[in-house]
Amino acid sequence: MIDKAVILSTGDELTTGRVVDTNSATIADRLFAAGVEVAAVLKVGDDREKLLWAFGQARGLGDLIIGTGGLGPTADDLTTEMVGKFLGRSLKQDQAVAAALKQRFAARGIAWTENNLKQALFPEGATIIPNPVGTAPGFRVELGQGQTLIWLSGVPREMIAMLNETVMPWIAEQKGDAARIAACAFKIHGLTESKLDDLVKPVKLGTYAKLSFRAHFPDLTLGLTVSGGAAREKDFTEIRQQLRQILGPYIYAEGDATLEEVVGRLLLDRHQSLALAESCTGGLISQRITRIAGSSAYYLGGAVTYSNDAKVSFLGVQPATLEKHGAVSRETALEMSQGIRERTGADIGLSVTGIAGPSGGSAAKPVGTVWVSVAMKTFHEARLFQFHGERERVILGASQAALNWLRRCLA
Amino acid sequence: MIDKAVILSTGDELTTGRVVDTNSATIADRLFAAGVEVAAVLKVGDDREKLLWAFGQARGLGDLIIGTGGLGPTADDLTTEMVGKFLGRSLKQDQAVAAALKQRFAARGIAWTENNLKQALFPEGATIIPNPVGTAPGFRVELGQGQTLIWLSGVPREMIAMLNETVMPWIAEQKGDAARIAACAFKIHGLTESKLDDLVKPVKLGTYAKLSFRAHFPDLTLGLTVSGGAAREKDFTEIRQQLRQILGPYIYAEGDATLEEVVGRLLLDRHQSLALAESCTGGLISQRITRIAGSSAYYLGGAVTYSNDAKVSFLGVQPATLEKHGAVSRETALEMSQGIRERTGADIGLSVTGIAGPSGGSAAKPVGTVWVSVAMKTFHEARLFQFHGERERVILGASQAALNWLRRCLA
Repeated sequence: MIDKAVILSTGDELTTGRVVDTNSATIADRLFAAGVEVAAVLKVGDDREKLLWAFGQARGLGDLIIGTGGLGPTADDLTTEMVGKFLGRSLKQDQAVAAALKQRFAARGIAWTENNLKQALFPEGATIIPNPVGTAPGFRVELGQGQTLIWLSGVPREMIAMLNETVMPWIAEQKGDAARIAACAFKIHGLTESKLDDLVKPVKLGTYAKLSFRAHFPDLTLGLTVSGGAAREKDFTEIRQQLRQILGPYIYAEGDATLEEVVGRLLLDRHQSLALAESCTGGLISQRITRIAGSSAYYLGGAVTYSNDAKVSFLGVQPATLEKHGAVSRETALEMSQGIRERTGADIGLSVTGIAGPSGGSAAKPVGTVWVSVAMKTFHEARLFQFHGERERVILGASQAALNWLRRCLA
Repeated sequence: MIDKAVILSTGDELTTGRVVDTNSATIADRLFAAGVEVAAVLKVGDDREKLLWAFGQARGLGDLIIGTGGLGPTADDLTTEMVGKFLGRSLKQDQAVAAALKQRFAARGIAWTENNLKQALFPEGATIIPNPVGTAPGFRVELGQGQTLIWLSGVPREMIAMLNETVMPWIAEQKGDAARIAACAFKIHGLTESKLDDLVKPVKLGTYAKLSFRAHFPDLTLGLTVSGGAAREKDFTEIRQQLRQILGPYIYAEGDATLEEVVGRLLLDRHQSLALAESCTGGLISQRITRIAGSSAYYLGGAVTYSNDAKVSFLGVQPATLEKHGAVSRETALEMSQGIRERTGADIGLSVTGIAGPSGGSAAKPVGTVWVSVAMKTFHEARLFQFHGERERVILGASQAALNWLRRCLA
């Protein structure tokens, strides 16, 4: 039975503060949703004694131990060796993993070095956890008395893939329904955390339901969890429905979808093509749109017109407009969106021009002043946004506001 | 004497994964630079038993215990109560802190509630650590036998202020020079982790020096630390010099600088302006360049030409070139870099065209095939790169390779 877990994060980069450990939070989040309590998180460096100490402590606290890090080929990767020592088991090379490693190197034309074979060693009796996106697989070992140790790559992308594809399904299999927690998440745009809190206060939660707020700019996520498995399914459905009604257009997605995914889906559904004219966002919106696989079906391209000359030559903005109203103005934004729409033949032109800072602001147009314009066949408007904070925050906020407005235009 | 520290991070938001704990990384980073080794980081929820367990473990592992969280006024803020219990000391209200709290509430027009007085309670004998930016002060308690416990607010902004203004100066006072650690980091492009490991193996480290590897795609960082303070300064300088010689052009930065910062600095120094023509990278290079404040001094803008039509209309790529060689080809890449250079009047045109996947690949041009071209006054070349993995990885790898080639052209 898996009730209590201990998470171990290892690596000198964690105990010297060079890297912020996100793995333990990701794992804790997933375990929580699966109804597994995290008794403690332990972090130690790449050190034999410390690892043994951590294994020992974890064994005393939980029935599931999930660790990350130290599975690589270099000398400071000590995990497998020390797990073997801790359990009193010898290490065995897995021939299939060794062959796959060699093949992977050959396929990429990377010179093979023997130290890579270290990643094919596993404690005797371990079940291998495939790493679909990297070289070092993980493993699961039964410790007896209902205890299990699972070890995953410390590279977040690899860890997440291993967690999703192998570990969480295995945990779900081990656990019954009653401990299951129903969960959903709403992604919000256009509300502050405290305003969101105010809006959802009237919702009656009872003892099984819990709301959580996570603000990770520019994303604001409202989570709902209801414990109790099938017996509480109805409560979950009702509260979710209430939240949908209260928050309506502020919700841009349910679940994990990003705003660019939502916009991409709408463009596909509406058979609309998009072109971008970016100034202060510097290519960020284009990059967000194109990181979605298949975006070439609706995204034609765009111009990053950082200089005034580029606004004129690439978008046909009138020099007189720039002179009279400035590069950051309603008029320039309107000409940019219309210009990119005409020159690419896209159904929709979206433009952004603003002052990201830290310099370039004035009393009339302070840092954070951003104009966004949407040009469609029967619609051509510009809107003013005011952002606060550092350059990166202004750029990120502007990209989010522009994409959200586009979403509303398409909805 | 302060040699070994244990960091405690507390709060249900950490063990349920709602919040990523950055406090422990911040503290570890500062302690490392001050010559204090972090033996372990322990995270537990707001739970009396777990807190006692964590205090007990920490006392067994380090001479300095630094904890965060649980100092607030609400029922789940248990730290001070449990520290008192752990040490067998009663809690005493500090009159000055109580008065300051009441005054703070009055000054902001916030209604006073008695539970706030909880933040004025401290274990007997504690030294108060002021919180210059929040309500709850922290404290320092001597545990005897050279051990010290320090507790700070869990709000990162408050924690950092308390750390900087009170804790780090106190630690520096306690410690001599001999324990100080000299550290540097090299950022690497063009080597795998195992190849890097091979290259640096001949370097003689002795017992005071340590190398560490960190791979966070597309960044690969080699860290060097030498302990022993002034007495080992010469060792540090020599090893650092050896590493520079061995790794030469693979090093794109020493310290924390990103590749786009390095490229930006080179463009400024050389008085060269840049324009970009991006296809598969979709605006990522432009976004990386423009997230640097002041980039408008050298970056004119660019085109994200996702469709063939956009390559023709924005960059002047010949339709015949696209037809004969395809969009992903040496010829197209060369015309793109030359086209953006001419049309913007930039000194340097940089272009990228490739297949990011997951679809669009063929036997002759598999997913991950990327052509990069640099056009300068007296230089016009294209290079082929082959990347592996998912779409995001291909895009990120292509942006890094393009920026690194630009760096080498400017060096």
